[in-house]
Amino acid sequence: MTYCVAVQLEKGQVYISDTRTNAGVDHISTYRKLFTFTVPDERVIMIQTAGNLATTQAVMAKLQQQIDENREPNLYTVASMFEVAEIVGQCVREVIAYNNKGNEQKTLYSCSIILGGQIKGSSMALYHIYKEGNFIRATEETPYFQIGESKYGKPIMDRALNYYTPLTQALRCMLISFDSTIRSNVSVGIPLDVIVYQADSLVLPKGKRVSKHDPYFQSISQQWSETLRQGLLDLPEPTEDYFV
Amino acid sequence: MTYCVAVQLEKGQVYISDTRTNAGVDHISTYRKLFTFTVPDERVIMIQTAGNLATTQAVMAKLQQQIDENREPNLYTVASMFEVAEIVGQCVREVIAYNNKGNEQKTLYSCSIILGGQIKGSSMALYHIYKEGNFIRATEETPYFQIGESKYGKPIMDRALNYYTPLTQALRCMLISFDSTIRSNVSVGIPLDVIVYQADSLVLPKGKRVSKHDPYFQSISQQWSETLRQGLLDLPEPTEDYFV
Repeated sequence: MTYCVAVQLEKGQVYISDTRTNAGVDHISTYRKLFTFTVPDERVIMIQTAGNLATTQAVMAKLQQQIDENREPNLYTVASMFEVAEIVGQCVREVIAYNNKGNEQKTLYSCSIILGGQIKGSSMALYHIYKEGNFIRATEETPYFQIGESKYGKPIMDRALNYYTPLTQALRCMLISFDSTIRSNVSVGIPLDVIVYQADSLVLPKGKRVSKHDPYFQSISQQWSETLRQGLLDLPEPTEDYFV
Repeated sequence: MTYCVAVQLEKGQVYISDTRTNAGVDHISTYRKLFTFTVPDERVIMIQTAGNLATTQAVMAKLQQQIDENREPNLYTVASMFEVAEIVGQCVREVIAYNNKGNEQKTLYSCSIILGGQIKGSSMALYHIYKEGNFIRATEETPYFQIGESKYGKPIMDRALNYYTPLTQALRCMLISFDSTIRSNVSVGIPLDVIVYQADSLVLPKGKRVSKHDPYFQSISQQWSETLRQGLLDLPEPTEDYFV
């Protein structure tokens, strides 16, 4: 399984992906699921992948090949993030159709993708690309997307995030969302890949890989457990009518 | 959809079920999913249901019919909670087999059940009964079961509950688990049915129906939102390396 989350806020974008893949419980590996493309000072593109690993690797390889062979259109030449999403969506459609040739269940080797970034002269954009290759865009009202094992980590996102949340605050919220997911589902695992993109910078962040021993992640994980434990204790006692 | 959760702790058991059912987003109704059976001072039985409503209603009707017609075995005559679970499991198996006759997809009209309670002379027991009619029992290490839309509300259960948690504390934790689920998934809805059973009392609680306007549920829901909001703000600032 996989968990990836991305937000687009007033001041920038934050992306976090886990790195665990599994084909059965006895076949667990670590693979990167957060990828970047950039033309310095001109465009910055982030892609997160979930789903069948053969499919997502093929999609990423084909996108890179288009660039390397200067085939048009490609991620480095189109004029808008919308067109970038079209290229990625088309690639998803082709790979899934090819991998499922002859399968009755057409979406067996499926995937979903979060795509975001910015091209000079336009605003940032963030897309959720479905296995069918079509996509939706994040807005001020709906500033985040999740793919993969999204449910465990959704409540904290729903409660604590909105478009005007500062980036550092969003990052903390998203790390807590991961902490909750990792505790509840063994198929989502550390290390995590994190990228914080500052709006209009057009600079690709190096990004951070968060290991099990990362002191910051450890400290907020522990503090959050204590916050919840104490928070539950501090709730008022249930009224008598709950016990009759 | 549905969310039901039950715990078995040192001092007793707590059951909470929502009441929302939906057949499509334009067909939403309220149905009870928490049922009780008792022989006063001798046995107390609680059943929570999730899944296809026609199936779960048929299961509950058949269990009641066995009692009304004094057919053996029935919920009021068997000697142990294990045998109660066998009766319910067998009933689930029969109803699902009947409702799916002629369907290729054998588990289309499926359900799952949480069963718990106590019979005089034995300890409390809590079972998760699967659509296949077989079941597992809660233990000290795994004191709770969820059925239905379980993921949103699982992290808080995993963090805050263990076998020695007092009943009032468990009740608060479970109500928060519901609050998180209700906020994240529109197919789980208020009112909630709550039962707190005191170990060895052999007294069937009347139970409480928690409406949207229940002052206690409202107050902990608000306080919990504030706890999380403030808790996130109180987390230390991310280290510099998260932003490069």
